[in-house]
Amino acid sequence: MTQFDAKQLANVGVRNLSPYQAGKPIEELERELGIRDIVKLASNENPLGISPLVKAALQDTLAGLARYPDANGFYLKSKLAKKFAVDTAQITLGNGSNDVLELLARTFVNDQHEVIFAQHAFVVYPLVTQAIGAKGIAVPAKDYGHDLPAMLAAITPKTRMIFIANPNNPTGTFLTSEALHDFIRQVPANVLVVLDEAYYEYVPEAERAPSLEWIASFPNLVVSRTFSKAYGLAGLRAGYMVSHPDVADLMNRARQPFNMNSLSLKAAEVALDDDDYLHKSIAVNAAGMQQLVDFCERQGLNYIPSYGNFLTIEVGEKAGELYQQLLQEGVIVRPVAGYELPRHLRVSIGLPEENETFIRALTKLLG
Amino acid sequence: MTQFDAKQLANVGVRNLSPYQAGKPIEELERELGIRDIVKLASNENPLGISPLVKAALQDTLAGLARYPDANGFYLKSKLAKKFAVDTAQITLGNGSNDVLELLARTFVNDQHEVIFAQHAFVVYPLVTQAIGAKGIAVPAKDYGHDLPAMLAAITPKTRMIFIANPNNPTGTFLTSEALHDFIRQVPANVLVVLDEAYYEYVPEAERAPSLEWIASFPNLVVSRTFSKAYGLAGLRAGYMVSHPDVADLMNRARQPFNMNSLSLKAAEVALDDDDYLHKSIAVNAAGMQQLVDFCERQGLNYIPSYGNFLTIEVGEKAGELYQQLLQEGVIVRPVAGYELPRHLRVSIGLPEENETFIRALTKLLG
Repeated sequence: MTQFDAKQLANVGVRNLSPYQAGKPIEELERELGIRDIVKLASNENPLGISPLVKAALQDTLAGLARYPDANGFYLKSKLAKKFAVDTAQITLGNGSNDVLELLARTFVNDQHEVIFAQHAFVVYPLVTQAIGAKGIAVPAKDYGHDLPAMLAAITPKTRMIFIANPNNPTGTFLTSEALHDFIRQVPANVLVVLDEAYYEYVPEAERAPSLEWIASFPNLVVSRTFSKAYGLAGLRAGYMVSHPDVADLMNRARQPFNMNSLSLKAAEVALDDDDYLHKSIAVNAAGMQQLVDFCERQGLNYIPSYGNFLTIEVGEKAGELYQQLLQEGVIVRPVAGYELPRHLRVSIGLPEENETFIRALTKLLG
Repeated sequence: MTQFDAKQLANVGVRNLSPYQAGKPIEELERELGIRDIVKLASNENPLGISPLVKAALQDTLAGLARYPDANGFYLKSKLAKKFAVDTAQITLGNGSNDVLELLARTFVNDQHEVIFAQHAFVVYPLVTQAIGAKGIAVPAKDYGHDLPAMLAAITPKTRMIFIANPNNPTGTFLTSEALHDFIRQVPANVLVVLDEAYYEYVPEAERAPSLEWIASFPNLVVSRTFSKAYGLAGLRAGYMVSHPDVADLMNRARQPFNMNSLSLKAAEVALDDDDYLHKSIAVNAAGMQQLVDFCERQGLNYIPSYGNFLTIEVGEKAGELYQQLLQEGVIVRPVAGYELPRHLRVSIGLPEENETFIRALTKLLG
């Protein structure tokens, strides 16, 4: 009789995947070390907690949770369309931007294709590519960021998709509007350019690319954004993608109908209107970034100048050890050896006192 | 220059998909007709609303929503493992059971494979199969339910997966423990049997199959369940799958790390302990089922005897028209022509007064 061998039965791409390593949750470290007052600066979360307006709106929504969510996200899409001057038919909603990124790849990429991304780019790009069985092409970084000419040169007839994160995670590097436009202009129309703008709101307004406007000229451009960062809704999973309507229509066919839940839909809708919270997020981030940069300058530590809500600091070859020692001090940051940055640690910007706790702990450990 | 043609670029399976048609949300009908007091009996939701215990727990969790969810679902998995006497390594959590069903298929099925399901079976099975590019084999139903001998006979060397819903949606038909066991025993070990028990809690205890225990003998058996029905959490998206640990390990590699959000994790955890709510759900459903069955008997309407939280009633060739007329009366039910049941309407069991509103409206329309 045939024996059961799960690994043999699994699709090849999946078989060889390593699961995504999430930042250590606070409560997990509490369980492990039996300590309290832990500072988590590991997952580029918003240190403000959710907006009071969102919290109030969610309380009103709790009663209806036995009903399925609106599968079409009517209200949220309408609000996004209005705010960003796009058509609702261009919008795809996701259970976090991870969901729309994966959905896009599964809609357009198969095991005959190549997918291009940069060295040090967000791990979800290679993971998604591998799960589909496509070939991932990691183009060596330049100054820790995207080397756009090299990425253009990597395009072959098999290339179906290019991921660009701007700002990039985990390096915080940023591409100017001009450089990006010049790049997209040169990508063939049958190659999708995925512009992941998860950290868009932290970029100074004058420097932001008018990426959504570009879609009219470049129908192969898709832009993803998230409510997990500046909008403070990481725990609720809410993201969206703006694209040519035909791209959105095709993704919608493969989408899980209730991929965004009722509370995420409501929270995102309210968060979009809460300008006070957004401005405060941005201000707290800018101040905390300065606090960490000043610390690095004082300590003579190299860091990668960052446009995100995190700073990636070069702490040397003992980065892995320092990460563990910081945990013992009750500070969770993110080791980035898996991103080919074995000498760095990525530190999310927290509240001033959280940043200070990290600074004190690292100062102590560095001696 | 190459022209952009999204449809041409999309994977073949996706290109030909029709999106899932969700039940009409109450607020959508309100927008369309400008009426209030709508009764929705269309999506097999729990008419009780969420449990008060869950609601209270969610309020406590709101403050932490700017943090990412626990990617491993530690507490919920522990609770499920304890309650159902399985190992946490056997559990995969999902954004609704839709998510784990799709994840399982993407992990094990590719475009070289065949996937077997029954005529009138839940639409997600053929949708998921088609999205992957695999060949779906719909085996004709017997008395509206699964024809297990015919499904066994449909297995070929290409068969990788068989979906069985028990009870089945949208027919409510049920397979006895003996029949199921006899079936699984005969399926080759290299074919995964997916037992979708979304409506499990509504089955009288004495008739429930000990399906989770069977996994020890049949490692190719996977069982999915949901919090959307008897537990009343449809709006939050929470489901799980129990399988051989190797199957769960492989699915975990392809899983979106934060597929369940913080509130869903917390709500499901609390709901699992809320026996009062669960018992009330089951009792309200049993009484409502009797109310609808009595009505059908009085009216001389055929119906498919149901083990779920819905009743599928034969209203004749004007079913589509009646569906529209019921909407005008403020009652949303589900047309099932897409399930090859053009003479039927599926009615979810509501509160006694909601059922009565439906009964009055249908009685009036049938003249």
